[in-house]
Amino acid sequence: MKKLMLAVLASSALFGSVAVQAADIELKLAHTWPKGFPLFGTSVDEYAELVKELSDGRIEVKVDSRNKHKSAFGIFDFVKSGQYDIGQSASYYYGGKDPDTLFFTTMPFGMTSAEQTAWFYEGGGLDLANEVYGKHGIEVMPAGNTGMQMGGWFRKEINSVDDLKGLKMRIPGFGGKVMAGVGAIPTNIPAGELFQALERGTIDALEWVGPSLDLRMGFHKVAPFYYSGWHEPSTELMYFFNQEKMQSLPEWAQSILRNAAKLTAHNMTTETFHASAENWSQISQQFPDVQIKQFPASVIAALRESNEKLITAESERSEIAARIVASQKAYLEKARAWTVIGDKLYLDSVSE
Amino acid sequence: MKKLMLAVLASSALFGSVAVQAADIELKLAHTWPKGFPLFGTSVDEYAELVKELSDGRIEVKVDSRNKHKSAFGIFDFVKSGQYDIGQSASYYYGGKDPDTLFFTTMPFGMTSAEQTAWFYEGGGLDLANEVYGKHGIEVMPAGNTGMQMGGWFRKEINSVDDLKGLKMRIPGFGGKVMAGVGAIPTNIPAGELFQALERGTIDALEWVGPSLDLRMGFHKVAPFYYSGWHEPSTELMYFFNQEKMQSLPEWAQSILRNAAKLTAHNMTTETFHASAENWSQISQQFPDVQIKQFPASVIAALRESNEKLITAESERSEIAARIVASQKAYLEKARAWTVIGDKLYLDSVSE
Repeated sequence: MKKLMLAVLASSALFGSVAVQAADIELKLAHTWPKGFPLFGTSVDEYAELVKELSDGRIEVKVDSRNKHKSAFGIFDFVKSGQYDIGQSASYYYGGKDPDTLFFTTMPFGMTSAEQTAWFYEGGGLDLANEVYGKHGIEVMPAGNTGMQMGGWFRKEINSVDDLKGLKMRIPGFGGKVMAGVGAIPTNIPAGELFQALERGTIDALEWVGPSLDLRMGFHKVAPFYYSGWHEPSTELMYFFNQEKMQSLPEWAQSILRNAAKLTAHNMTTETFHASAENWSQISQQFPDVQIKQFPASVIAALRESNEKLITAESERSEIAARIVASQKAYLEKARAWTVIGDKLYLDSVSE
Repeated sequence: MKKLMLAVLASSALFGSVAVQAADIELKLAHTWPKGFPLFGTSVDEYAELVKELSDGRIEVKVDSRNKHKSAFGIFDFVKSGQYDIGQSASYYYGGKDPDTLFFTTMPFGMTSAEQTAWFYEGGGLDLANEVYGKHGIEVMPAGNTGMQMGGWFRKEINSVDDLKGLKMRIPGFGGKVMAGVGAIPTNIPAGELFQALERGTIDALEWVGPSLDLRMGFHKVAPFYYSGWHEPSTELMYFFNQEKMQSLPEWAQSILRNAAKLTAHNMTTETFHASAENWSQISQQFPDVQIKQFPASVIAALRESNEKLITAESERSEIAARIVASQKAYLEKARAWTVIGDKLYLDSVSE
């Protein structure tokens, strides 16, 4: 009987109960955003809450925003080194650590949110991501999608490729390189200075996210042309897990951490879709002068050509880069054919 | 010490551990589909597996397909009566039990999958569904989406509303009523007899789901015109929970049952998107004579008019029906504006 009781005590200590006050497993998480940042940051707080609930309090995730850890783009190193057990950020911020991380956020003229989600989970995308991150002792999972990012706020209309030549635009990353390829001058400016830069004409245009996060920035008050998207058609954030730490946990805990991440990602995607719908409704009603614009076909063609050159160069960089580019291209082709005969033809048929 | 040990024993019995062989909570689930039916049925098996994993074996969900319980459309009654604790089916099968259940699957000319998911979780849709089902002691949650359902397989092209008059088409439910409103003759035929009916001309057309589930039916071999969708733009399945049973469970168990349902729904949606992409690729490559068609604008206009009449009649039926129709209409308007400036303009700009 004593032996049994000890076994019960041991298993109770290991697996917890309402009677146990402290969590059995405590994990530290660092994310890129300011504390309480809408959608990107708040979804991480929801993740910690969900993990706690699903585990009946046995797993506690302590969330540090960049206000605490002071290093917005240090997430990759934090998790690689084990300083933090979990991270949440965007993969394409870490091209300096490993250029193959570039492919796992979104690509210009790439997949939509539904298409890319299917590529990650059903088309081999997540396996490729984990092949890249595994070299650094990190396991990754999608963390939520902004949906289509808009092409940006422009002070003047763009009627030809010539109108892009010399255009000063805040557009960082790969999209900026594509823009540079057609003669624009991509710049990066801290978020807090963007509104003034656009208002004063220091820059001619900028892209931020989409209605979900653009509304609070106020760009619609100083640049009336809102262009449809091309450079980030489905920006996916990423959870990072320290592999060694993850694998040291019992299976039920691993399952909760991964499945809660997967669900939180879907929740953020839905919440962001909703915020975009609500915020675009506000902008379009309160600022009727704002005009939705599409780049002319000649501009799209020039941007696609510039993009193709860059992607080809990327795919020649390494064996794995070539495989990732080929996988994305093949999946996009199949998935897009379905998107077109499914959602697109429906939307065409009901649009006036 | 004895008291503490008893408390530990009690909490261990309640909250389980690896040492406990049998699950602490056993639940029975019934679904509408044949055992192992792709996507609709297999996702329920995945749900049971996920619940077991997340709960570290403390919750076991036993899944009965219709092969076992013999009543495909008895799920509502099974869960209402408590004969089963959980069910999975489609809400619109239960209009005979409560006409207000009609609205929670998909509506002709209604929201796309992304739009409707946001309506359920962020736009008040799920609260309305639970207001309807709560009267029957049932709690509901979305269970996975087929995405756009195709308009169906037709033996002949449809060039005008006149071509629909007298057309015999397998199209059950609300979509069938809309079709009847323009002069078609909707029929229902058991799944196993559909291929022959279409091949022999007993019917002129039929709708099933989309490439994800149409491929195995073989309709593309006998009816070459595949029309784009309108009648079920985002068919969502539904989980049913017996309210009294759910509320009798500890909070962590309720959280696991609900969140696993939510995640399983997203997983099924992604798996179905992937299957549609793969299967459409197969059909279009192996059967190059299959043609994708859109109904002419005049046909779409007539179908919309027929639909509007029916929806107006529905909304006048009860106070809650009026609120549901108003909620869907308002959300569709906001969400669609975002879909159009986001995904649609992007797809337009990259389509040749």
